[in-house]
Amino acid sequence: MSSKVVGILGGGQLGRMFAAAASLLNVKTVILDVGDDAPAKQVLNSPHINGSFKDPSFIQQLAEKVDVLTVEIEHVDVDALRKLRESHPQVEIHPSPETIGIIQDKYRQKLHLQVHLGGANAPLGLFQQIDVTPDDIKRVAAELGLPLMLKRRTLAYDGRGNYVLRSSEPRDITAAIQFLCPNGGGKGELYAEKWVPFIKELAVMVVRGRDGNVASYPAVETVHKDSICHLVWAPFRTANVEQDPFIRANVQRIAQEAIKSFTGAGVFGVELFLLASGEILINEIAPRPHNSGHYTIEACESSQFDNHLRAILGLPLGSTKIKVGAAGMLNILGSNRLIQPQPSKVSFSSDPLIDKLTHVALSTPGATPHLYGKAQSRKGRKMGHITVVGVSDAEVGERMAGLLSALADFEHPTTDSESSSALSSYRPHLHGQSHPHPLISIIMGSDSDLPTMLPAAQILQKHFPSVPFEVTLVSAHRTPLRLVAFAKGAAERGVKVIIAGAGGAAHLPGMVASMTALPVVGVPIDSKSVAGGGGGLSGVDAMWSILQMPRGIPVAAVAINNSTNAALLAVRILSAGNPELVREMEVYQKGLGEEVDRKIGVLGDIGWGNYGKSKI
Amino acid sequence: MSSKVVGILGGGQLGRMFAAAASLLNVKTVILDVGDDAPAKQVLNSPHINGSFKDPSFIQQLAEKVDVLTVEIEHVDVDALRKLRESHPQVEIHPSPETIGIIQDKYRQKLHLQVHLGGANAPLGLFQQIDVTPDDIKRVAAELGLPLMLKRRTLAYDGRGNYVLRSSEPRDITAAIQFLCPNGGGKGELYAEKWVPFIKELAVMVVRGRDGNVASYPAVETVHKDSICHLVWAPFRTANVEQDPFIRANVQRIAQEAIKSFTGAGVFGVELFLLASGEILINEIAPRPHNSGHYTIEACESSQFDNHLRAILGLPLGSTKIKVGAAGMLNILGSNRLIQPQPSKVSFSSDPLIDKLTHVALSTPGATPHLYGKAQSRKGRKMGHITVVGVSDAEVGERMAGLLSALADFEHPTTDSESSSALSSYRPHLHGQSHPHPLISIIMGSDSDLPTMLPAAQILQKHFPSVPFEVTLVSAHRTPLRLVAFAKGAAERGVKVIIAGAGGAAHLPGMVASMTALPVVGVPIDSKSVAGGGGGLSGVDAMWSILQMPRGIPVAAVAINNSTNAALLAVRILSAGNPELVREMEVYQKGLGEEVDRKIGVLGDIGWGNYGKSKI
Repeated sequence: MSSKVVGILGGGQLGRMFAAAASLLNVKTVILDVGDDAPAKQVLNSPHINGSFKDPSFIQQLAEKVDVLTVEIEHVDVDALRKLRESHPQVEIHPSPETIGIIQDKYRQKLHLQVHLGGANAPLGLFQQIDVTPDDIKRVAAELGLPLMLKRRTLAYDGRGNYVLRSSEPRDITAAIQFLCPNGGGKGELYAEKWVPFIKELAVMVVRGRDGNVASYPAVETVHKDSICHLVWAPFRTANVEQDPFIRANVQRIAQEAIKSFTGAGVFGVELFLLASGEILINEIAPRPHNSGHYTIEACESSQFDNHLRAILGLPLGSTKIKVGAAGMLNILGSNRLIQPQPSKVSFSSDPLIDKLTHVALSTPGATPHLYGKAQSRKGRKMGHITVVGVSDAEVGERMAGLLSALADFEHPTTDSESSSALSSYRPHLHGQSHPHPLISIIMGSDSDLPTMLPAAQILQKHFPSVPFEVTLVSAHRTPLRLVAFAKGAAERGVKVIIAGAGGAAHLPGMVASMTALPVVGVPIDSKSVAGGGGGLSGVDAMWSILQMPRGIPVAAVAINNSTNAALLAVRILSAGNPELVREMEVYQKGLGEEVDRKIGVLGDIGWGNYGKSKI
Repeated sequence: MSSKVVGILGGGQLGRMFAAAASLLNVKTVILDVGDDAPAKQVLNSPHINGSFKDPSFIQQLAEKVDVLTVEIEHVDVDALRKLRESHPQVEIHPSPETIGIIQDKYRQKLHLQVHLGGANAPLGLFQQIDVTPDDIKRVAAELGLPLMLKRRTLAYDGRGNYVLRSSEPRDITAAIQFLCPNGGGKGELYAEKWVPFIKELAVMVVRGRDGNVASYPAVETVHKDSICHLVWAPFRTANVEQDPFIRANVQRIAQEAIKSFTGAGVFGVELFLLASGEILINEIAPRPHNSGHYTIEACESSQFDNHLRAILGLPLGSTKIKVGAAGMLNILGSNRLIQPQPSKVSFSSDPLIDKLTHVALSTPGATPHLYGKAQSRKGRKMGHITVVGVSDAEVGERMAGLLSALADFEHPTTDSESSSALSSYRPHLHGQSHPHPLISIIMGSDSDLPTMLPAAQILQKHFPSVPFEVTLVSAHRTPLRLVAFAKGAAERGVKVIIAGAGGAAHLPGMVASMTALPVVGVPIDSKSVAGGGGGLSGVDAMWSILQMPRGIPVAAVAINNSTNAALLAVRILSAGNPELVREMEVYQKGLGEEVDRKIGVLGDIGWGNYGKSKI
């Protein structure tokens, strides 16, 4: 048993996963929450405290038993924690009551970030405090524009306490006030945010040590549904050639800077908006492990819960590196239906949606369901989640697709749903189409090169259907800026190998190689074979251009016009990250041998004299 | 809560890890073991049974509470389980009492395997039942040879109940009898095994569904110390060019066949011996999750505990795929020292060895310590384990090295230890030496090619010290069988990219590519530059041989003599499995640009007229 005991305010799913991480290190954890069967209490056989974590007397009782105190929820009594520091100076509180106090009031949180992250230049949308009066709201709506986001300063989460005001009509404003402040409301209750026209929501989990050092997990993309976290894709990838390739690094840097500005140790969830311009704005911060970081349990070298424990105990922070190719997470929310479980089969819940998703997850390779053990399922309640890992975004997407289909079937048995639109970019590879999450990018300078490059796409589609690829045009001489954007952004889009076909001066492969760290395979194209091509050099011109790269910038050259071999080489390259492909390539090679065996048979059967004449 | 409740006989570390896996699915587990604080009971807040799992009345009591019953230890009362099947027909028992009965008696286990795995051809060493008399032991020693392995048929594990008889001297035989049967002994108590001169110990975890289908995790190498599992390396890799590249597949096949022969569901641990000849013999089977499979918690798509739960509940089996590049596991055994923990720091145990190893693990990226929560540490007792994951065997080895050093320091502060010998093959890359666990293999036909190929090794060592590589000779024309062995075995040794340099006819890269599925980079060598080389073709001869490979078998050609670019291409290829290398390559490329910037400065400063004259 560790010499330190940790107390947690709150015994929900975050406490449950935290307690499981603490159990690995045999660190004793005491939970303060109402009841004996809270999710976190189920996974610990120790004397917990049955009481509200909002009640100062119970917090005092908890402090008697522990060395370090932390929270799984920010809506706690900060004054009680501050007083605790006087009455129990030996108990450390992480993160600090001051940090929790700032963060639990979203307006103070924004002010704090504004002060610490560069004032007017801070990565924040415009925001303003408001009085809860129709006049003041109308004034702010005129100032910040419509739609206007009205938010409660405290006790708001999962979209509760938020209201989107779409007009300044008095009855709309009245409706907003009634929704947000059903009992009236005073000056300090609400604030307003200028509407942010984001294209994506991102999140970064940051861990802050007691020494103030921070480390962050990769930025992830989050998808919300009805303002509740629905899906997480990790790591975040830029989606197209034009998108700024440095978004992920910028997001991580902004999130780390934000968390450095607070005091106390622990894991923080930073939610951000990505705008079409590439601008990044901080949305909100949570002073605790966060739903968008659950994937770290299966996908990272140390989980967010492990790191929260390490941070608050003053232990070395764990590696935040992602250890798999890609990961996804789907929240399991309760439905409004209940069934009687059949005793004959294994049932995981009396909520048929939870049971269904769990069973589908158990049939999905790489999927790990987590059920939180909450006694009652309710519509929209977070009842569990499913993490999916895989070698690539494409594999994770395909594995997730079955889960999302099951969800869509349940919610809208006959029509398209939000889920299927969330899924659309993760559909299995359509015949003859570029995959939205390619590992191989096949590029060429002109559509006139396509006939020479097509065999690359064809052999991938036929023999290696699990390998996602794209085919597009990038011309070194006619679209030089697209060349730069393509090369600089390829790795951030998740591409692992680039195949570039080029004839004549054949600059494309070498120029791409000079601006990416990915392996580039060059296919020398005989321009004669290309409509309108020059030539007479049989592709030897392009061959020398592609082959004789200067020391420092390698290109992998294949035989002239042999785009088939370029594709096969790319698959071999991918096997460095997916040993499964070694087996698949061995099967392909065995097939080549068998084809020769067949011809040996024919040659023996009909004789060499007849071989060329018969149709073989 | 799941509709099914699982009961476990035994509440040790296996039960603890199983219970944690069950908690993820919210499956209720009831533990039968003595005391209220057994390791498994600590991670479950449910009414357990305080009693011996060997006591039939407690087993009956457990059966009243559960739907499925399983074991974390095979030394249970099989008759009691059989009777349970009559008294509680609704309770399923997995694996079946018959299977447990066969396996818990090692002699019956061997007989069973012999019958089901091909009789005299079964992958088993010779074994015989013996009477516990000096005469009979002498007779068997004469028959099977010395040294002779004497084993208790039942209740033996971790080397307990085993005795190595090294001579047929009466006093040695008497000592053996006294050790194994201190209270005398009858006919059924012992059996003998012919000594197996193994070169490695391997293990495979196999999961058997209720339908009899099996799936297996990758074969792993196990290292024992004092007959107790010390280290696990996953996956098992063949160690040198000459070793049969199909060992891993054969081992998995043999293990699966063995487990198919039993009845009932669950995870089984199969321990095997690898002989110098490549022959594989089954050593022992455990009818439960096994120490050699703990690494699966962090390293595989579903853990052995998750799969045990799935199997016994009749759910779909989980993916057994390894999701990281490589993994290792170190057992934490108790020492014979105790200290008073210092209240000022976080201490994990009053056993200083456990505390030390845990702290070192917390400072090691990719390491996850598991402490089992056993009340008392004793010398040799399994108190916990540490799993280490990484992108490659080399990275796992380096991460493990710090743990093994700490262990060696503790055990033998001043001298070399067993641990450091276990560690020797995982030392960091020595300057100028091949790494024992290479990701890149640099080969050439002759040592006369070495001056041309050396820059490849040098740039790797200088700019990419984390990338392990080897340099060796493989001649297509002078060592054609070594060529075959090298190419066929490279992937199984863990190599991810091959760089092959060749001049003249330059068959090496293409022939290697035809017998491996790995990417092969070919460096055309100008034979003129090689001592005694022919030439006059400036390497163009070799270039065409390497470049113009037939459709189906790709080689990645780089510029003539440019082995530097071959190495840089290999690093880019490895980034498909290790995104970290993208960052490292970007740094290298930035350096190339900065070098040009410097020269631009000099050219501006001293003018073009003086540039060639001054020393730059």
